[in-house]
Amino acid sequence: MIAVVGSVAFDAVRTPFAQGEKVLGGAAVHFALAASFFDEVHVVGRVGGDFGEEEFAVLRQRGIDVSGIERVAEGETFFWRGEYGFDMASRTTHETRLGVFADFNPTLSERARRADVLFLANIQPSLQRRVRSQVPSPRFAALDSMNIWIQGQRGELEAAIGEVDCVILNDAELRELTGLPSLYAAAQRLLALGPQAVVCKQAEFGASLYTPEGFFSLPAYPLEQVIDPTGAGDTFAGGFLGYVAANRSRPIDEALLREALACGIALASFNVEGLGTERLQRLQPQELAQRYAELARFSSFTPAPLPLRDLAAAG
Amino acid sequence: MIAVVGSVAFDAVRTPFAQGEKVLGGAAVHFALAASFFDEVHVVGRVGGDFGEEEFAVLRQRGIDVSGIERVAEGETFFWRGEYGFDMASRTTHETRLGVFADFNPTLSERARRADVLFLANIQPSLQRRVRSQVPSPRFAALDSMNIWIQGQRGELEAAIGEVDCVILNDAELRELTGLPSLYAAAQRLLALGPQAVVCKQAEFGASLYTPEGFFSLPAYPLEQVIDPTGAGDTFAGGFLGYVAANRSRPIDEALLREALACGIALASFNVEGLGTERLQRLQPQELAQRYAELARFSSFTPAPLPLRDLAAAG
Repeated sequence: MIAVVGSVAFDAVRTPFAQGEKVLGGAAVHFALAASFFDEVHVVGRVGGDFGEEEFAVLRQRGIDVSGIERVAEGETFFWRGEYGFDMASRTTHETRLGVFADFNPTLSERARRADVLFLANIQPSLQRRVRSQVPSPRFAALDSMNIWIQGQRGELEAAIGEVDCVILNDAELRELTGLPSLYAAAQRLLALGPQAVVCKQAEFGASLYTPEGFFSLPAYPLEQVIDPTGAGDTFAGGFLGYVAANRSRPIDEALLREALACGIALASFNVEGLGTERLQRLQPQELAQRYAELARFSSFTPAPLPLRDLAAAG
Repeated sequence: MIAVVGSVAFDAVRTPFAQGEKVLGGAAVHFALAASFFDEVHVVGRVGGDFGEEEFAVLRQRGIDVSGIERVAEGETFFWRGEYGFDMASRTTHETRLGVFADFNPTLSERARRADVLFLANIQPSLQRRVRSQVPSPRFAALDSMNIWIQGQRGELEAAIGEVDCVILNDAELRELTGLPSLYAAAQRLLALGPQAVVCKQAEFGASLYTPEGFFSLPAYPLEQVIDPTGAGDTFAGGFLGYVAANRSRPIDEALLREALACGIALASFNVEGLGTERLQRLQPQELAQRYAELARFSSFTPAPLPLRDLAAAG
């Protein structure tokens, strides 16, 4: 079982293809929908009275355990409103209303504490540490973060990183956290804090995996059109950790993490094809399997001996 | 033999590791040094009286044919001065002096016209077309361009693209040229103009190859530190086209272009490790062969059957 702790929210996104409709979102929701293809997911979150049966049903339909989502009837659910630029890379936030999420301080159920895999989505590092301490022996624990915590709670964040097996950040966050321009150097710095893996999310350029054993990178799945990139990173994390969780009998080594990363990339490619969670909700396993297999072909080549020029002979 | 037409220049670059020393540069120089590992390169360019024996010697030492570089004793060589930001991605130009390059309008020698492979580096599209028309039957012709020509000579550039086998642009240029946010869609648009391949240069995120047959992408070689990214794109093009040129007996198909792209990425990784051409000048073939082989391992994984959850059984 996978436990995820993070935001359950509403988003209103403007892109060239969306006019700011209010849709289901939040890191824990995107993560859970992706991971649910592989294992049971227990979501730990907090919502307001505006979060109703319709929203819970989206999660329940994928067999997701929502018993850890606290509903505060008189409160409001976390709400984010923003827009993306032409290339879907730059993102502007117009409004953030934390609502009941402002006082989020979860105590995990007995069941959640026995999770095999734990994902600490992007919340305060001090909260991530509290949650981490409640799950005594997960096979694999990972965390995400963001610029606010890097700037404001760096020490706590570094401590939290020392307590997980895997850090999942994007390229800008890796640089900001370490002060190093090279993503490779930045990843090495974080590995030195304790984790066995650092994953760098690179949006349209896929993702890279750094471990003490090596380096691995895959492109994003090529798409004609991106509708809404919101939640792509959490969907990636859900596919990545879901794959790890489902392979119960395999050691969590470089080979498994490479396959898991490909799985995360495949899932993220579907997420961005629809508004909010729309595309993931109707995703079929065989569609996922097809893109997963294609990714292996998109990045492989057979090195031939280099046809080097004999300069001595040429001269 | 490979013919390259483009700038032969001096650069003065400021990075966290360089204080703006004036060094040998220019697209044709970076390209030629890389391609010279694989085949004879004939450089077509124009320099001023400030370009001396020391500079010519750098090219000659690698067996490069400099007979097509016109030297205008009373003129000045193309000079570019600029700096890079912290992450080596953003680049600011402080000064550009075209010098004798302003009137560059090359007439190729009989020898150059028989080139097997032709690279039209970043110059005016109308000039690229004139040069292209002078080389009647290359096995493979490619061009690069930049934002100035995309904005100011779009029609000529599109016509030039229709006359080559391969377009090599970076991600921002692909988007600007086509007006399409998706790199995949942008590449399809350019393939429709005639070329058999579109290569997207993605700096630290490597490069991608788009052909009518498929999609291929490799990460950049991971480096602890980048000293000077200037010329990385042209070095990449030199490795890419050099590999194609040297494989005279193989068809120029998807498999060959994939290997060639890896070769370009390996070469570019050395270019950025030194100021200007410094690292390429002392590069040993075995160093290149090692990184080339490593790239195949950095991007390969063996897809296992997806460990999908049986939702019906779980519910």
